[in-house]
Amino acid sequence: MDETLLMIPGPTRVAPRVLKAMSENIVNHRSAIFGEILTETNQMMSDVFQTENKSYLITGSGTAAMEAALANTISKGDRVLNIVGGKFGQRFMQITETHGGIPVELEVEWGHAVNPDDVRYILEEEEDIKAVTIVHNETSTGVANPIEEVGRVLRDFDALYVVDTVSSLGGDDVFVDGYGIDICVTGSQKCLAAPPGMAAITLNDDAWDVVDKTENHTYYLNMKKYKKSGDAVPPETPYTPAVSLMYAMQEALRVIMEEGLEERVLRHKLAAKATRNGVKALGLELFAQKEAASNTVTSIRMPEGVTDKELRGTMRERYRIELAGGQDHLKGNVFRIGHMGNITHREIISTIAALEMTMQGLGLDVETGEGVAAVADTYLEGSI
Amino acid sequence: MDETLLMIPGPTRVAPRVLKAMSENIVNHRSAIFGEILTETNQMMSDVFQTENKSYLITGSGTAAMEAALANTISKGDRVLNIVGGKFGQRFMQITETHGGIPVELEVEWGHAVNPDDVRYILEEEEDIKAVTIVHNETSTGVANPIEEVGRVLRDFDALYVVDTVSSLGGDDVFVDGYGIDICVTGSQKCLAAPPGMAAITLNDDAWDVVDKTENHTYYLNMKKYKKSGDAVPPETPYTPAVSLMYAMQEALRVIMEEGLEERVLRHKLAAKATRNGVKALGLELFAQKEAASNTVTSIRMPEGVTDKELRGTMRERYRIELAGGQDHLKGNVFRIGHMGNITHREIISTIAALEMTMQGLGLDVETGEGVAAVADTYLEGSI
Repeated sequence: MDETLLMIPGPTRVAPRVLKAMSENIVNHRSAIFGEILTETNQMMSDVFQTENKSYLITGSGTAAMEAALANTISKGDRVLNIVGGKFGQRFMQITETHGGIPVELEVEWGHAVNPDDVRYILEEEEDIKAVTIVHNETSTGVANPIEEVGRVLRDFDALYVVDTVSSLGGDDVFVDGYGIDICVTGSQKCLAAPPGMAAITLNDDAWDVVDKTENHTYYLNMKKYKKSGDAVPPETPYTPAVSLMYAMQEALRVIMEEGLEERVLRHKLAAKATRNGVKALGLELFAQKEAASNTVTSIRMPEGVTDKELRGTMRERYRIELAGGQDHLKGNVFRIGHMGNITHREIISTIAALEMTMQGLGLDVETGEGVAAVADTYLEGSI
Repeated sequence: MDETLLMIPGPTRVAPRVLKAMSENIVNHRSAIFGEILTETNQMMSDVFQTENKSYLITGSGTAAMEAALANTISKGDRVLNIVGGKFGQRFMQITETHGGIPVELEVEWGHAVNPDDVRYILEEEEDIKAVTIVHNETSTGVANPIEEVGRVLRDFDALYVVDTVSSLGGDDVFVDGYGIDICVTGSQKCLAAPPGMAAITLNDDAWDVVDKTENHTYYLNMKKYKKSGDAVPPETPYTPAVSLMYAMQEALRVIMEEGLEERVLRHKLAAKATRNGVKALGLELFAQKEAASNTVTSIRMPEGVTDKELRGTMRERYRIELAGGQDHLKGNVFRIGHMGNITHREIISTIAALEMTMQGLGLDVETGEGVAAVADTYLEGSI
């Protein structure tokens, strides 16, 4: 199987002990033993969300959880403020429309973070906004949105605060209760470093009140059913879950608990800073605004005269490191380095070193060692 | 981890080589290497469905695929004939309602199969039936419905023929093209003997015509997106799939191809016959009508004076064999033996032997060896 190092914004490298957990025998998902696994895993999810709420695991991608957040709370004609500064912000808007909601779009230039004052302005101007959606970490642009500050604005309004932390939870600060988040969703295959295929969602009492009043327009993602099964003793899932992936989630979350969430976030912040310093030392230009830079993925403008195929192709074919390309209108114009999950100085140094060699091989004016030195200096300095 | 033998109607025992496949490194789901895996796996799915249609894998349970079948074809006010003779038939009806359809219920007594003439009668009487849903193998009752004969009736009408083969595909005769099935869905964790968490769906051109005309009311299960991504070269999935489960599906389907689908179905039929003969020899009464008996799960009336907890509890605690209980109003009244997937004479003999011992231990009038002899004789005879 493939030995390529994944430096993409998900899926990320999964630790051998987590992969190994998946080779255990399948147990009955309606059994005491599975109930124990689910109890522990749900609780660890809430711990990582930093919430007193219960959390629920959904077999599916992060998109499934994004849809669950809106499909269970939006009724036909409800107005939803969608903060859109990238592909996943757009996705929330599309999901809003799919479920009969009326999107009120707050468009943010790609590469920029939303200004919380703009959110306040719209909420003051527009009437009856039922919910506000925001993507914490916009994977498509490498931007982190200020979810704490937007949460502070939301305290003055009734709208539900719906936050996508698919590519940030476990790698950046997310305090669901502390930030006043009503519904928070995430995915398994990013900073949590579990295999793809599991999503998680947590809702507070305000959100459940809305769910209870909302007519079902989804069956598989019906949160009332997840609550009923998940709150039973022992807990279950409403439909057959991916048992093996649950083993993996359990093990991946144990790894996080062992490392400590705070330590883990610091490690991500340092990796992000080292990556930015490394690429800047090679004369590359960051795509995201400095103050908006993500702690889990760095978006870099493609150097002039070089194609995506040349740069990422060489990285992959010759150096066995996979980077991500740009999405939609950024295709060919940016490339992205994911530094999520089980990422240490080793992977960052290897990646920047390979980038140096790739750039030199493509005839760009780069001296080997320059980028790596900047990475090493960042780690030596050690502060974020 | 648990060494209990699962004799339940899913999840079923997964072969070590399939479990092992899941411990491979995660690859990028947007890569050539994953495209190759998906190409082979999708093709094998179509081979197992016995169709010329393309097949699509959905990360989720069989229910997700059931919902995909209806959410993409039913518009508000459409009338759907739901054939309901158990829990999963009911589920199709609930999904119909969730997506604004109007169910026309053909109620079938639990334990009985639908009479195809009744389907014809309703289709002649009722106007504008957009689709007919049927569950091939009703796991909750141990009944197999005559999907070939119902398909023959449907040829005289325009309604879409939507068939759930979640607990039959790979263990009973399913010829999607041969039976005139427009949409067929299945799950990974039953007769295919892969881990739970993957569902598959196939649609013919008539079904796609309806999908194209139907407004989206699901995002994660939007089949237009699955088609667009899945038909690309190399194929992709619209959202991040459970990469490890895809490895497992690929390996499990290879196992099926190596065994041969026809051989596999015969093996299931023989296991079903042996199970029925074994339990009958112990004086137990089958729940399903003789002519409607499932080839993948046998439903048995609870012997008088014995509780579910005593019977299944002893089987599980003392003999490490897990059987399934009854669902809904059958709870406590029946128990079920799943004989799906990687099931040989060894598992059937072990199960019936343990059942003999359990029954004797509970003071029932049973001689050890009687049930086992009936199983052995069935296998010796060898014909179904």
